[in-house]
Amino acid sequence: MPTSIAADPHRLLPADPAVRSIARNLLDRVENLPIISPHGHVDASILADDTAFPDPATLLVSPDHYVTRLIHASGVPLEELRVGGTAEVQPRQVWQRFCESWPLFDGTASAYWLRSAFHDVFGLTEELSGANADETFDLIDSKLQEPGFSPRHLFKDFNIEVLATTDDPLDDLSAHASLAADASFAGKVVPTFRPDGYVNIDAPGWADRVEKLITTSADGLSGYGAYIRGLENRRRYFVEHGAVSADHGVRTPQTLKLTTADAEQIFERARRGEGVAGDRDAFEAHMLYEMARMSTQDGLVMTLHPGIFRNHHPGTFERFGGDSGHDIPFPVSFTEGLQPLLADFGTAKDFHLVLFTVDETVYSRELAPLAGFYPSVYIGAPWWFLDAPDAMQRYRAAVTETAGFSRSSGFIDDTRAFCSIPARHDASRRVEASFLARLVAEHRVSEERAHELIVDIVDGAPRRVFKL
Amino acid sequence: MPTSIAADPHRLLPADPAVRSIARNLLDRVENLPIISPHGHVDASILADDTAFPDPATLLVSPDHYVTRLIHASGVPLEELRVGGTAEVQPRQVWQRFCESWPLFDGTASAYWLRSAFHDVFGLTEELSGANADETFDLIDSKLQEPGFSPRHLFKDFNIEVLATTDDPLDDLSAHASLAADASFAGKVVPTFRPDGYVNIDAPGWADRVEKLITTSADGLSGYGAYIRGLENRRRYFVEHGAVSADHGVRTPQTLKLTTADAEQIFERARRGEGVAGDRDAFEAHMLYEMARMSTQDGLVMTLHPGIFRNHHPGTFERFGGDSGHDIPFPVSFTEGLQPLLADFGTAKDFHLVLFTVDETVYSRELAPLAGFYPSVYIGAPWWFLDAPDAMQRYRAAVTETAGFSRSSGFIDDTRAFCSIPARHDASRRVEASFLARLVAEHRVSEERAHELIVDIVDGAPRRVFKL
Amino acid sequence: MPTSIAADPHRLLPADPAVRSIARNLLDRVENLPIISPHGHVDASILADDTAFPDPATLLVSPDHYVTRLIHASGVPLEELRVGGTAEVQPRQVWQRFCESWPLFDGTASAYWLRSAFHDVFGLTEELSGANADETFDLIDSKLQEPGFSPRHLFKDFNIEVLATTDDPLDDLSAHASLAADASFAGKVVPTFRPDGYVNIDAPGWADRVEKLITTSADGLSGYGAYIRGLENRRRYFVEHGAVSADHGVRTPQTLKLTTADAEQIFERARRGEGVAGDRDAFEAHMLYEMARMSTQDGLVMTLHPGIFRNHHPGTFERFGGDSGHDIPFPVSFTEGLQPLLADFGTAKDFHLVLFTVDETVYSRELAPLAGFYPSVYIGAPWWFLDAPDAMQRYRAAVTETAGFSRSSGFIDDTRAFCSIPARHDASRRVEASFLARLVAEHRVSEERAHELIVDIVDGAPRRVFKL
Repeated sequence: MPTSIAADPHRLLPADPAVRSIARNLLDRVENLPIISPHGHVDASILADDTAFPDPATLLVSPDHYVTRLIHASGVPLEELRVGGTAEVQPRQVWQRFCESWPLFDGTASAYWLRSAFHDVFGLTEELSGANADETFDLIDSKLQEPGFSPRHLFKDFNIEVLATTDDPLDDLSAHASLAADASFAGKVVPTFRPDGYVNIDAPGWADRVEKLITTSADGLSGYGAYIRGLENRRRYFVEHGAVSADHGVRTPQTLKLTTADAEQIFERARRGEGVAGDRDAFEAHMLYEMARMSTQDGLVMTLHPGIFRNHHPGTFERFGGDSGHDIPFPVSFTEGLQPLLADFGTAKDFHLVLFTVDETVYSRELAPLAGFYPSVYIGAPWWFLDAPDAMQRYRAAVTETAGFSRSSGFIDDTRAFCSIPARHDASRRVEASFLARLVAEHRVSEERAHELIVDIVDGAPRRVFKL
Repeated sequence: MPTSIAADPHRLLPADPAVRSIARNLLDRVENLPIISPHGHVDASILADDTAFPDPATLLVSPDHYVTRLIHASGVPLEELRVGGTAEVQPRQVWQRFCESWPLFDGTASAYWLRSAFHDVFGLTEELSGANADETFDLIDSKLQEPGFSPRHLFKDFNIEVLATTDDPLDDLSAHASLAADASFAGKVVPTFRPDGYVNIDAPGWADRVEKLITTSADGLSGYGAYIRGLENRRRYFVEHGAVSADHGVRTPQTLKLTTADAEQIFERARRGEGVAGDRDAFEAHMLYEMARMSTQDGLVMTLHPGIFRNHHPGTFERFGGDSGHDIPFPVSFTEGLQPLLADFGTAKDFHLVLFTVDETVYSRELAPLAGFYPSVYIGAPWWFLDAPDAMQRYRAAVTETAGFSRSSGFIDDTRAFCSIPARHDASRRVEASFLARLVAEHRVSEERAHELIVDIVDGAPRRVFKL
Repeated sequence: MPTSIAADPHRLLPADPAVRSIARNLLDRVENLPIISPHGHVDASILADDTAFPDPATLLVSPDHYVTRLIHASGVPLEELRVGGTAEVQPRQVWQRFCESWPLFDGTASAYWLRSAFHDVFGLTEELSGANADETFDLIDSKLQEPGFSPRHLFKDFNIEVLATTDDPLDDLSAHASLAADASFAGKVVPTFRPDGYVNIDAPGWADRVEKLITTSADGLSGYGAYIRGLENRRRYFVEHGAVSADHGVRTPQTLKLTTADAEQIFERARRGEGVAGDRDAFEAHMLYEMARMSTQDGLVMTLHPGIFRNHHPGTFERFGGDSGHDIPFPVSFTEGLQPLLADFGTAKDFHLVLFTVDETVYSRELAPLAGFYPSVYIGAPWWFLDAPDAMQRYRAAVTETAGFSRSSGFIDDTRAFCSIPARHDASRRVEASFLARLVAEHRVSEERAHELIVDIVDGAPRRVFKL
């Protein structure tokens, strides 16, 4: 009977026997610590409702753009994976396609997460293949019907202590409130304030959202002042419901302090649909500055992840909407863009600014130097395309020599794939153990300190950086 | 007697004994597979004519800008290496210079290729030095006179199955035709359509070449329409002569869909020598778009390698012409530039677009994300300055976690140095085996799958990507 | 009793036993070679005066922005570290803070240097901690009073053969002269010409410095011609006092050959305080070109390190001045910017141009290709944030395959921390041995050649590149 490589206790650890042994000891320290997930995209309602997950394909394939994109690249239309949902293809057919496509994933981070989930959550020991598609579909499907596989049971089994969701500023956060009020649910599920759709004046529906924000949340004010007040009020509402951070997916890391009059003019032009070239970027840059100011007042940690060309393929966007697998990174530089913000708030007491990137060049060039000086700046964990073993090793090697370990954010899973959460955190812990083990083997960090460091990296950092 | 390190069966494999052993087994699978070379710069006529190669210096040193550039950096004028040819220096003197300069190459990719060729092709076991220059010159020179060292013999000994050349659109491809018609030659030598000189309106001689294209190949049409028709016709001629790809060495990866009227205006201004600022880049961007359109119609694989400042040192260019060792890379980004092309052709059936780079930053940031979504996009193998063991390891580590193994082009030797072809492919196979062996040792890929993958990487990918 | 990891003979060497053994043998070759330090920031007067160093905090903490910046990032105001000096905090308090902050430095280059200095220079075997702050302060403080710890004694103990300082063009170099004239001091301390404050027309005090340059050093000339003459004269003065290089910390690597008339206009506008947008960059670009021209005449090696946003946090700059830990790198590209300079001087006889970067992307993309062609161009050693073990490994891996070993500058410590000099050179030698050992283990360089190469890297290169 084939044994999954997901079961090997030394997976992701270095091959050298001596270093592997150091790493394995370090891993032992943190392997069973609870999961702290301060940023992700799981929907709070699945926990509030606690209804059984749907079939394997609808749970694990169709909504996961990490998975569907690579199958799409092999020539399979997204329709056939039920991206966006369709009545013409059945989940079992999607699963068949996925199983046939499984060899595409060799060497990817997704393969690691999925294989771990298959093995650890669903007890699969075989590798997927076209031949066992029906059998594995049925096996996982039947598990998903069992009470032990309900969202709340898995939440507990996964040993999740804190899970942050990502939410629209006008969300009423009722799912969060109901979970908080429910004595039978011991976990902590906190919302995250994500105002992108209210900040990017070119985003479809911006004016309507802003209108609603002003109408509902601006204390009866009007105009730009109401917009700012509305955002401040909604942030306070989020804080009251447990939010610890506000997340910003902007085009570039430019920041700008406009005068109120200038900001108001752009804002009103945009509301009238009369925006001019440059308005979008200027307003976004200004609002990043404003959001930092609000963070210094209400304490929300500010997380920033610029440098993505969203919805690169118009045909796919028109048919399947956003988050359908064709957001593509481009070069980014933080040093000049963030300077206006950091000049005013970089040393502000208790301000936390976590900088994420999918452009690795900024790690040693900018993020480590910035975080190694500004008390507010933390280096975001490798994220999205970079949340993968080799990329995580490169990250540590790039930032540690300048900034040490204390300036990193702690691991972020950033996932909407609930069942992948344990595997993602496990992978991160294994990589951290491997990196530290090499430093120990090279006599750069003492083994004693490495054991303290790995606990701080896994457990201390996310609590400290995200004020948990 | 000193033994060349080129003879060690574990060369380029990882040092760790356990990983080395896995790698060596993987290498065994592919070490003797035929060479598929879908892009390079060997002249088809040397095989068609099959005349003996000249002396060692004229074969191995003077025309190879990888070699001459580093000797030049040490202070030796290119004249003394007979770059461009001269009567004043003899090949034996060039060889003497080269042997004296041999220590400069320690650690370079060129040293690996040359040392392998010396050992494997010519039977040299000593390291070159000023002291053995005469002796090694004579030894190689006498081998080159032997019938077994004719181009066709070596082609067979090298186990080359397919060799692509690079050709001017107006080339009559007679050498290719004569090889195809020759029953005594079993190899496959295919042309590649390289239209740079017809697309860059600032290239010296552009107007003359375009005039000739229109006169000879445009079905009697005139103007911009004739230019497009001429290119389409010549592409078809290449296809009929076995071509599988069109290669584009543009300045940047910008693409642009001009209206026919706008394209025509630029084209006519350029023909009159009245081009204005921006015309060159706009026309090149537009023609990349047009070439992609043609590829979707005639099936030629489109290969793209932007980001090079050609002929950086004017004094050297004036004296020795192009390809004399001072083409220098600059930063490049594909995400925004390619968007217009990919918006229209990115999911076109059977369209293949292979993206090469000498700016490593795009591997994880752009190429893996693009190729991991668009069915048309393939990540070109590490090329030119990056065709080297460590750089190839970085490439795999940068792209695989996002795009797996299926989205890479397969190895490209891109060489005009015929005798280096086996060593280049051998080096690539060794690096692929080493990379996979690490993944196996870290339990990220099963050993069974690794054995399938390496065959696909070495043999399957180039056939599939280049439609061979 | 705890033993410092700084004492391990295999520190920084690879973990694999076979590779480590090769590396250790290579290290044996160079471990005791004299230190050649062709670029740094130690003040010549400390050696000329040879007065005892002050207390541990004032020697090792307050002036070292590598150290204070990371403590600052943890929330400690720079005042409390006596950055810039203050009467309100005592050195012993600074030392206490530093010792409490010591765990922040795990994994950083600074930790390696400091731990080595503590162990090797001051005989500390314990790790610092808040608990032993007083004890370690006293121990180091008492050592610093001993005659054996005077600057000149340490200079000799450190086995420094040549030490270059960095000096203002109008410095009278009396400390250098006095050391040169002192028969009791065997070391060589040479000045370096650093004209940034005379070239950047926006630098505070530029006009006054230029006025003084013209008044004192321009042979009675006036205007732009006097400025150029003054710089030429001061360079000659530096050459006469032993200088071998001129160092340029410019914003970007742009170079430009202005006409004398155009340069004169910008120069005079700047003197009148009437500069316009673009003047600063154009003049700096022009002056880089001029400085290269001067180097071809007076032989000073030209070193260049662009790409830093100086004094990123205005509040800190206003209070503590420059070099207070918030200079942050940004992206840089040399290929196009340097082209005008290299077109005219790139192949000039005996011209040496050493290119430093803190943007690692240029190593393989630009620096290795440039240095692998131009006889004048050398790749500067990993510098500043990149002067660290992993970064140094990345550097070698990025440049060697294209440019070999002969085109690198040799190690540069660039430090104002005198006691860290041996540890910095030791770290570099260990990394070079490790890199070469891997190439030997992978049969890419013969062991025999590796032994020659490491001597050339450590001892030959700095002498050759800096004309020592």
